[in-house]
Amino acid sequence: MTKAFSPPYPTIRTDGTAVTILDQRALPYTVEFLTLTSWQEVAEAIRTMAVRGAPLIGVTAAYGVALSMRAAADDCALETVLTALAATRPTAVNLRWALSRMKRRLQPLPPPMRAAAAWQEAQAIQQEDAALCQAIGEAGLPWLVAAAKRRQGEAVRILTHCNAGWVATCGIGTALAPVYLAHARGVAVSVWASETRPRNQGLITAWELGAAGIPVEVVADNAAAWLMAEGKVDLVIVGADRIAANGDVANKVGTALKACAAHAYGIPFLVAAPTSTFDPTCPNGAAIPIEDRGNQELTHTTVLDETGAVRQARHYPMAIAAGPNPAFDVTPARFVTALLTEEGAIPPPLAGVWAAGRQGA
Amino acid sequence: MTKAFSPPYPTIRTDGTAVTILDQRALPYTVEFLTLTSWQEVAEAIRTMAVRGAPLIGVTAAYGVALSMRAAADDCALETVLTALAATRPTAVNLRWALSRMKRRLQPLPPPMRAAAAWQEAQAIQQEDAALCQAIGEAGLPWLVAAAKRRQGEAVRILTHCNAGWVATCGIGTALAPVYLAHARGVAVSVWASETRPRNQGLITAWELGAAGIPVEVVADNAAAWLMAEGKVDLVIVGADRIAANGDVANKVGTALKACAAHAYGIPFLVAAPTSTFDPTCPNGAAIPIEDRGNQELTHTTVLDETGAVRQARHYPMAIAAGPNPAFDVTPARFVTALLTEEGAIPPPLAGVWAAGRQGA
Repeated sequence: MTKAFSPPYPTIRTDGTAVTILDQRALPYTVEFLTLTSWQEVAEAIRTMAVRGAPLIGVTAAYGVALSMRAAADDCALETVLTALAATRPTAVNLRWALSRMKRRLQPLPPPMRAAAAWQEAQAIQQEDAALCQAIGEAGLPWLVAAAKRRQGEAVRILTHCNAGWVATCGIGTALAPVYLAHARGVAVSVWASETRPRNQGLITAWELGAAGIPVEVVADNAAAWLMAEGKVDLVIVGADRIAANGDVANKVGTALKACAAHAYGIPFLVAAPTSTFDPTCPNGAAIPIEDRGNQELTHTTVLDETGAVRQARHYPMAIAAGPNPAFDVTPARFVTALLTEEGAIPPPLAGVWAAGRQGA
Repeated sequence: MTKAFSPPYPTIRTDGTAVTILDQRALPYTVEFLTLTSWQEVAEAIRTMAVRGAPLIGVTAAYGVALSMRAAADDCALETVLTALAATRPTAVNLRWALSRMKRRLQPLPPPMRAAAAWQEAQAIQQEDAALCQAIGEAGLPWLVAAAKRRQGEAVRILTHCNAGWVATCGIGTALAPVYLAHARGVAVSVWASETRPRNQGLITAWELGAAGIPVEVVADNAAAWLMAEGKVDLVIVGADRIAANGDVANKVGTALKACAAHAYGIPFLVAAPTSTFDPTCPNGAAIPIEDRGNQELTHTTVLDETGAVRQARHYPMAIAAGPNPAFDVTPARFVTALLTEEGAIPPPLAGVWAAGRQGA
């Protein structure tokens, strides 16, 4: 039993006039912060993935709205900001959820009262996110405890994809929340962090887990089926960017391959996300827009030069054509064992029923 | 209808005293050749992947035996060479097949007669490989022609993994042989070359297809399920390094993920390989040894510096631990639609029956 985990850095913090974020483009090479003083800078930070992770994008966008309200904004200005922020990343629905919530809070108010309300609401979303992460961890923990019993004292081996840890949230993460809770409560865990080409967010996962003293190794994305076939994976846990009404899950590209394989090898495949990720307006995964992030993420990669300095370098010869670069893919609901949410584990096909019930409430 | 494809460079050539190979470590950045004058240099070229591709490794190893025979070798020396060459790559069985064939040819001969016979046998294996590739192409072609009919004049979209083209053989390739034949016969084709981390052999596939005028784009390994879900893949065709008696297929790591996904999305998954890839002594994929190639393939990557020079650079921070790096994985036979061989298309579960019949013949 070690003490409860808390993140070593805030992913976002404010002083009421500016917003400072952990710059994820520099991770895991260096820890840098970026101060944003306008909603346009917030939009740019989301678009360039200085900030990433569906829950954290939602919180950051909410603060973007707050920054725009310093000049007491009329309805037209509010709508402009909401539309522009919503357009920064098309797939993650938490972004739209947070912006809708800001709109509901601000629109009834006379413009001079909006600034203070916007800061309050953004702070509320941020604080709630920490609680959501904790609850998601509790929903996932029984799966790890059960796996630990089967492992008879050996560490439970978890495969994850991309980064859905504290770096991607305002709390202890989504996919990694059960891992942090298990570790703190004395359940031995170890993690395979898949590299997550083209942007290698698996390195961020390895960095944050390693810093917390949790055994973690990076593997090639291609190695997932080998790991499963060799009996080296007890559970797969990933995050989500949008969950359709039928339980189909949009998450970082490569997720669906792991889900197909987990199904083939009989390994539980868990998706951890707050219910703000549910989109009852999407009947199924085919209706989820998938962002393409362009060629350069494929043709170039981050390297350390001889001095240890970090830089982007081309690694495709000029004559080689790079194809589409979707940022996400859709995992069919039938390959998802359970959705781990702040309200507990939900069977994927009930996502829409659940969301409809909440809207009616 | 364009003219029949022939490779622009020989992958291996000899003058009877030395062996010159296309150095694949330099591809697709520069075209370089490496001259090998001893069996030890051949072993090193195979181990370091200067030469790669299961069929080509077999041919190169046969020439390695021939090089060792210049000093008229006794049985002890022959056995030493065969054992050392067999140990260079544990998974590809064509290597062992070629060495067994050399042993069967040479062992009955008195040592002074072995040198000439060894060169002849190695040349025979090389020449036969070109014919095998052609026949594998013919076995695969009907699948492309049928897909072309369904596509009604639009290009047939093929997803491949790693490189199983002319670079990997002494002919027009295995997985890419049907592609080259289709293109030459006026069937419109286009190819998705998956990157194939950690060594990026997908870039070699893009280089060789692009040079032949066949439309090709590189995609992240993670993008395969997205491509399939979007209806952008008509066929998956890959090579193989070893095929067990039950039809399980060892091929470049990442292959099994694509096979699981192709099964889930209802897309034919074809494995192209000469029957020398069949291993009737392996009852199933679990009995196939899988090579681990160490951490450095993960932690370092090839990049072009500012001057365009090619070099290896670290891209994992020092504090990040890299996990296992299997070079291959095993695709269960149930996910393989057909094995494309020089004797036609074989249903995977009949691989062992077929191989036993051949041994009896």
